[in-house]
Amino acid sequence: MKEIMAIIRTDKVNKTKEALGNAGFPAFCCRPCLGRGKKSLDATVLNYILETGELPVSKVGEAFTETARLIPKRILTLVIEDEQVDMAIKTIFKANQTGNPGDGKIFVLPIEETYKVRTGENIL
Amino acid sequence: MKEIMAIIRTDKVNKTKEALGNAGFPAFCCRPCLGRGKKSLDATVLNYILETGELPVSKVGEAFTETARLIPKRILTLVIEDEQVDMAIKTIFKANQTGNPGDGKIFVLPIEETYKVRTGENIL
Amino acid sequence: MKEIMAIIRTDKVNKTKEALGNAGFPAFCCRPCLGRGKKSLDATVLNYILETGELPVSKVGEAFTETARLIPKRILTLVIEDEQVDMAIKTIFKANQTGNPGDGKIFVLPIEETYKVRTGENIL
Repeated sequence: MKEIMAIIRTDKVNKTKEALGNAGFPAFCCRPCLGRGKKSLDATVLNYILETGELPVSKVGEAFTETARLIPKRILTLVIEDEQVDMAIKTIFKANQTGNPGDGKIFVLPIEETYKVRTGENIL
Repeated sequence: MKEIMAIIRTDKVNKTKEALGNAGFPAFCCRPCLGRGKKSLDATVLNYILETGELPVSKVGEAFTETARLIPKRILTLVIEDEQVDMAIKTIFKANQTGNPGDGKIFVLPIEETYKVRTGENIL
Repeated sequence: MKEIMAIIRTDKVNKTKEALGNAGFPAFCCRPCLGRGKKSLDATVLNYILETGELPVSKVGEAFTETARLIPKRILTLVIEDEQVDMAIKTIFKANQTGNPGDGKIFVLPIEETYKVRTGENIL
């Protein structure tokens, strides 16, 4: 089995939850986190600095702050069969693509064993 | 080493903490999450629908809501030696089995390296 | 790619965030957890018990409480290239070593696939 760890926007949790349920993935867990992507200095600002050797005062504070800030996100965790990974990833893509930076990331991790606590059975 | 990720009921944290400590697993971390299992429509409701073609008004709203709702849970994370996995899983089973759906799941993940921050030593 | 899971002190998040950014690791996420290490009974107390067969009343309550208590910590999660692991670990060591117990732990987990949600591309 595999763990799907998806970091998504906070306002996409309900849409993703519904989409996953419809696609046959009812079981998952969701928790808040603070995150930051690789977004660096805005390209226009960077070019201005490189060309003039000066900082565009009005913009650079904003750009630097934006870069350093941690943004509230949600982490979705799904544990699913190996052959369901493609389908789950596509479902998460569809519910979360806005075309803007910050749409999130999906990571796939190996799960070696899975147990149901109530019965103690290995459900791998 | 292995990571044990156990999703359990919120009211079982203290009992599990004590049981793990007694079994020789003092070190772990615990965090809240919202989760949902694979529980689908109640079987009685489902049969009623299949037989009559109608919804049992008094029950179906409840059943659907129950299915869709995310329930507060706790995630326990333990990192332990490979040969301790069986013991840790049995300890978590014993502290958490109520016999009702929602007792939780346990996942085992591989850990490739482990370091102690204070000394910088690799404790694998 | 690898996941770096670091459990650190709550008051070291900003220092670690800055150090990771400077070392070329701008992207990560951070979340609260409650944790406990392997710290057991204080050695002086333990020796006193072993030698006298009695509990040093003034200290033992404190020692036991300290052992059982779950302490607020932060979990940092970074997903990085295999060859960046050493550098990231050293950066986290440097920002977090106080020399006292409780500095934290770092775990390295395998990541099998990584996707950017916005574009759907596999960025492994």
